[in-house]
This record gives sequence, C-alpha cells and structure tokens, in this order.
Amino acid sequence: MIGPSTYFRPEHRDALDAHTRALVDRREAVLAPGYRLFYERPLEFVRGHGTKLYTRDGDEYLDVYNNVPSVGHAHPRVVAAIAEQAARVNTHTRYLHASLAEYAETLLAALPAGLDALSLTCTGSEANDLALRVARHATGHRGVLVTRHAYHGVTASVAEVSPSLGGPDSIGPDVRLIAPPVGDGGAMIEDARHAIDSLVASGAGVAALLIDTSFASDGFIAPSAATAASLDQVARAVRAAGGLVIADEVQPGFGRLGPALWGSALHGLEPELLTLGKPMGNGYPVAALAARRSVMESFGRDVRYFNTFAGTPVAVAAARATWEVLHDEGLPAHAERAGENLLAGLHEVASRHPHATNARGRGLYAALDIVHAESGEPDEATTIRLVNALRERRVLISASGPHNAALKIRPPLPFSGADIDRFLTALDAALTEVADAPNG
Amino acid sequence: MIGPSTYFRPEHRDALDAHTRALVDRREAVLAPGYRLFYERPLEFVRGHGTKLYTRDGDEYLDVYNNVPSVGHAHPRVVAAIAEQAARVNTHTRYLHASLAEYAETLLAALPAGLDALSLTCTGSEANDLALRVARHATGHRGVLVTRHAYHGVTASVAEVSPSLGGPDSIGPDVRLIAPPVGDGGAMIEDARHAIDSLVASGAGVAALLIDTSFASDGFIAPSAATAASLDQVARAVRAAGGLVIADEVQPGFGRLGPALWGSALHGLEPELLTLGKPMGNGYPVAALAARRSVMESFGRDVRYFNTFAGTPVAVAAARATWEVLHDEGLPAHAERAGENLLAGLHEVASRHPHATNARGRGLYAALDIVHAESGEPDEATTIRLVNALRERRVLISASGPHNAALKIRPPLPFSGADIDRFLTALDAALTEVADAPNG
Repeated sequence: MIGPSTYFRPEHRDALDAHTRALVDRREAVLAPGYRLFYERPLEFVRGHGTKLYTRDGDEYLDVYNNVPSVGHAHPRVVAAIAEQAARVNTHTRYLHASLAEYAETLLAALPAGLDALSLTCTGSEANDLALRVARHATGHRGVLVTRHAYHGVTASVAEVSPSLGGPDSIGPDVRLIAPPVGDGGAMIEDARHAIDSLVASGAGVAALLIDTSFASDGFIAPSAATAASLDQVARAVRAAGGLVIADEVQPGFGRLGPALWGSALHGLEPELLTLGKPMGNGYPVAALAARRSVMESFGRDVRYFNTFAGTPVAVAAARATWEVLHDEGLPAHAERAGENLLAGLHEVASRHPHATNARGRGLYAALDIVHAESGEPDEATTIRLVNALRERRVLISASGPHNAALKIRPPLPFSGADIDRFLTALDAALTEVADAPNG
Repeated sequence: MIGPSTYFRPEHRDALDAHTRALVDRREAVLAPGYRLFYERPLEFVRGHGTKLYTRDGDEYLDVYNNVPSVGHAHPRVVAAIAEQAARVNTHTRYLHASLAEYAETLLAALPAGLDALSLTCTGSEANDLALRVARHATGHRGVLVTRHAYHGVTASVAEVSPSLGGPDSIGPDVRLIAPPVGDGGAMIEDARHAIDSLVASGAGVAALLIDTSFASDGFIAPSAATAASLDQVARAVRAAGGLVIADEVQPGFGRLGPALWGSALHGLEPELLTLGKPMGNGYPVAALAARRSVMESFGRDVRYFNTFAGTPVAVAAARATWEVLHDEGLPAHAERAGENLLAGLHEVASRHPHATNARGRGLYAALDIVHAESGEPDEATTIRLVNALRERRVLISASGPHNAALKIRPPLPFSGADIDRFLTALDAALTEVADAPNG
C-alpha cells in the first residue's frame, strides 16, 4: 500500500470533485511526466492578496508556504511597475537603461561587504549555475562542497550539487557532501576537512563551498554564534585550499530572516559570490549573482555572459518595486517581530503535543519537527497527514527536511498577528486531529 | 591598434555625449565584467512600438535586429494580459491553473508530430539544458553533436555545446562539432559519421544531435530540399547509434520563417525533443521543452523537474497572448510575404555593391555576407563598420556568422513594406559610404 502524500497521486483521482478531476486530467495529458501537484486534493487559485489565496468558489486560504510573493500576493505597486514598464519598452542589457545601474547600485550597497559586481539572471538555478562556472574558472579547480541535503537548482550543473533532489547517488563526481552546522558544528568541520582532502587527492581541487545560508532543505537551521563559528572554520579551510565561498541567498535573502536582509550577514559570512532569486521580483523571473569584481575579472574577460531575458527593463522594474515595497512597508523589521511571536506560539503548541518538537526559526522562516512521541524519531507519515489536514483547514504549508518530517513555515512577509493566530489555531487543531489520534 | 567594433569599448568613451557617458560609467561600475553594450556609441531606448524604438530625445530607430519582441515592441494585448494576470494572482505549477493546460494543448497541437509532453522553463538556455539532461537520461549516453558555430545557451551544460561562445576549445569532452548543412550536405554527413564513431569509441556514446534549425550562429542557412536531405541522413545515423534528435527552435520558432511556424517543419525533421524560447512571450521570460512522452517517461519518474518561475499564470498569460496576436494578426503569413520582398530587395542591393553577396533568407530571417570585393573572402572589418554606420542612420542590425562577416536581419514580425524600403535604402547608403569608399 502506498502511504499518504503531500502530492497528488493517481489513486486520489476518484475522490476529486468533477471540476478538479477534469482540470487534473487535462493537465496530465499535456504536461511532461515529472510534474507534480500539491496535496491529495489539489488546489486551484484564481486570486491572491497579501497573505491570502482564493479559489474559484471564493474560499480563502492562508498562505504559510509561498516565499516567492514575498511582499504579498499581487502587490499593487509591483504589478503597476511591471505593467507600466512593459507598456513602455522591454529590451535587453546590450542597450542602456538607467534603471539597471540604479538598481544594481542599491542592491550592492545592501549586500555583504566586498560584493561589487552584479550579473543578472532569470532564475536562482541560473544564478547558481553561473556562480559555479565563475568559481571554477577563477580557481582552476572543479570540486564543490555542499551540505548533505542541499538544494541549489535544476540545471544539469546545479542538480549535481543538489542531493535533496535525488539523494547522494545523484551528485556529481567532483561534489562532496558535508553535514550542516548543527550542534557544535564539529561534524561539519570534520566532514569539510575530509571533503577537501578527498577533492585535492582526486585532482579536482576545491573550487567552492556552496551554502544555502538558511539550510532550508537540510531542515532549516537558525543562525547562531555556533553556526557562525562552524561556517567560519569551514570557509577558512576552503579558502586555504584555493576555493571560494558561494552564499546561496535564494531562499533566505531579501529580509525573510529580518533586518539583516541576508543569511550571510547573520552568520558573519563574507562570501566571494552570492546568489539571489525567488523573492527578488515578487514572482517576476529575476535573479542575480553578486561577486567580488576581482573574482569575476578572468571569467568576464575570457568567457563573458549574456542572458536575453535577464536584467531587462521590466525585470528591473519588478525587482526595484519589490525592493521599495520591502523597505517602505518595513517588512524586514516586521518579519523579525512577527517571527518572534510565531516562534513563541510554535513552542507553546509544541508544549501541548508530544509529536511536535524542536520549534526553530528566524524572522518569517520557521520549522517544527514532527516525531513519534515515544521514540522521538522523525515521523514522515504524520507530517504528511498534517500537511493535508491543514489544507482541509485552508492553511497552506509543506513538509521538508532530510526525513521529510519537518513542517516548513515560510509565509509571505506581510504575515500579520491575526495570520499567526489563525495558523497556530489550525496547527493546534490539526495536531490534535492527526497526531494525537489513536491511529496518528 | 584595436579595430572597429560592434560593441562599446573603453576607447570609445571620450566620443560619447555627457549623458551617455555618465550612464555607461555608472553601469560599468556596478555590473560584472563581461557585460557588453552594442555599438561604439551605445543606445538608450525609453519607448518602443511595433518595429520602432525611441530614445529619450524622441529619435526613432528602425529595429531590424530584435527577435524577442516578435509581435512588436510593447504590444498592447501582451502587455494587458501580463498586467491583468499579475493583478489577479501568480502562483506556480504545483497548484492548478486552467490556462497552463489550455496553452499546452494549443502549442502541442501546432508542433511537429509526436511531441506530446510539455515542460515549461524560463529561458531557452534552461530548455536546452533540460533537453540534454533528458536525452542523456533516456539514452544512457553522454555524447552530443552540434554544428561548428552553434549557440545553444549559457548554463554550464549548454555552454559546452556552444562553440560560438568561445571556439572549439570551449566545448565539452563529449561534444563533437559537425559542419552545418551547406552545399550538398556532404561535409555534414561525413562529419557526423566521424563524430558518431569517435563518441562510440570514447565510451560516451551518442545521446543527441542538437540542431538550431535556422543555423543562426552558423550564419543562417535557409531550409531547402538539400538541407532537409542532409539533416535526414544525419538524424538517421544518430538514431541508429541510439541517440535522439533535439531541435532548438529558440530562434526560428513561432513563425519567424513563415506559416510552417518551426524550422523543423521546413526541414521535414521530426525531433524527439524540441526547445522554445525567445519570442514565446514577446519578452516575458518563458520558454519550454516539448518532448515525445515516451522519451520523458524515465526522466519524469527518476529525476522530475520543477522550475519555480516557469509556467506560472503570468508566464502563460504572456505566452498565450503572444500566440493569439501572432495568429490574429496573421504574422507568420506576413513574415513569408514580407520575407520574399526583403530578400528580393537584398539581392537588388547586393547587385549594386561588390562587397555584398549571398543574400539568403526565409520569412523574416535573412542574412547578407560582406566580403572583400577582390577576393570574395569574408570582411569582418567592413561588416562592423556597416553595423555602426546603420546605427548612425537609425537602423538596428548586427553582425553574425562564423567570420562575423554576415549582416543578421531579424526584425520584429510586423515589419512592413515601408520598413523594408527604409531598411534597404539605409543599407544601400551605408554600403556606398562604408564599403565602396576608398578605405572601405
């Protein structure tokens, strides 16, 4: 028997209403195999506003999952900026357009020290793919260190450094997996030492340490003095071997973790390369690689990079409007305050449910482990049931982490006190229903 | 001494007006090394409409270069579709959205036979990157055949199959270069035979033939009975070795070559995989891989593919509106008729200028070789001077081809009879000024 799933499967089809079943059938007939739909009963949203999504029937769902519409679904300022610029002109970066330089100046000034050269791309995958190309060109080495359950994207090159996609067998020959900075960080430091030795011995050498500074697919690890110290030691070892540090800020960046804006800043990490994506344009495809100019020089001279749709006037209009809303509405500071309340609430809920433990978070990125109450071991089946139970309560959330047994809590940043209460109430009820039940 | 250039170089700076110089300086200070600007005197466009672009001062430029705004710059129907959908909601493909399946049905029905499974991406690079991943997974082989000056994109994986980026030294170890289908195609067939033998002998095997069906960076080759016959033979040899055929329709697709819509159709090529990009959303970042379902099955099951910004409701709105405008305005048929007039005019101009020869085209994709009048050898320096001279006459065009000595003629599809006349008049005058001059 196939267990519960956070994705739609053929065996769920008969339980769907006629409209949804027809939509699903139509889609499966034309989309490539490999596409997936969230939930045993997939959802169709026709409208969004702030932290809410609405179905065709007008049912309102609280969004505790989507980090791309970071300043809120369909934010009118971002929509207007896209519409106005699209109506004027949308060329590419081989013509001049004042807004590109203006935006680059603003962004670089807010990034960690030393990053003074920006390359625009369309997706976080492209940004990480470019970062690896640059690191390999600059160092003359091929080897890359990533954390054990990392996710960095879907091009051929970055899929090879994304064990979360297909486990350790899917990674490239010049890639080494290391522990994330949990506990005292000793495992990470030890793993990194072995990885570096192994890469040097293989002849690949060390091109880069590539780190998602929120360790999202490793289950989310909140920045602390301990994580900062571990990362510092690993970064030093990588640099001593001739490698560079690439901070993947696609998930944590742009204020999700609070006013520090970037995970790197919270860890005291000063990377040579830093990638940006998902929330950058509130849903418009815009992403970037920021670099130290010295690291980019040889790649820029020998290889160059032109990406047709990247850094166009419309892409920049979307990114600039998103940036302005983020700051004008004080969302990074709000994320910090709201995140503290959210985390306190998660601790409180966890205290009432033996299946819920290890609440952790920073800003509006949080996670809660779901475990077998007796053994404390990760409980994927219950986590999945919780995700579906919350969907029935009109709350969108997902499962994550190495055992797929952590609730990933990552709402749009305007998540209000009322949203927190609504989420915690639903979570509490779902835990009672699903986890505490006799068959839970 | 550095010769003339179709790109801005530092030595051109002093000749710029103060406003442009300030914009260039500001941009160079923040963008990564490797970014380039068209022309010795770069251009800033603040407005576009149809086949025209306008500077801050209101100067009108005729666009004979940009293929991305395929149905015309800032087309109001595409702009409205983007604005309306962005104001409603923009989620991702893990929720249902009826427009995605509808658009996929429409597109697949118009593609070459057998392509029945669509994967959306954001860029043509991502589409080609995914096509290679799929081909390698499906065949269990690694080797790829591409034409000698091919361009297929900028991810690490597709840069390795793009010799036009950095010459033969930049290509990957499992990549073999073959002649494009010129003349009787004998060279292409012979090269392909050797390439297949070499890939099989190396152990890589043959995963795919990857072909831009317009052979754009090989200098543009118009489809003919001879090209179709050569491609057929090469495709058979590749399939006999266990490989697949990937048609890269990023440049020729969506009606540029006329009502056949795709270069594959004109060549009688029935690829297992086909990629789409640039004109698909008239500038919105949307691209795709179409595949035979049988070829995608194992990849879909074992690997999967999710691309955050790809196939979102706004991306689909842009693609659908572009498709509707293309057909409602009869642009593929217009491209065919206008292309015939354009080509006749190019032949006529060439007949008056000994430096211009070998006019060729199909639909609104054409090329004209610029040669030394005496030897008939490619003349890159004169080509570059022509591109800059046409810019001074407010006509946008570029140089291309293996020797960078072909004018690439690739305007937005609503290119009118008046546009053709204006272009040919400017070209004639520029040839007289630059090529026929004593130092030309």
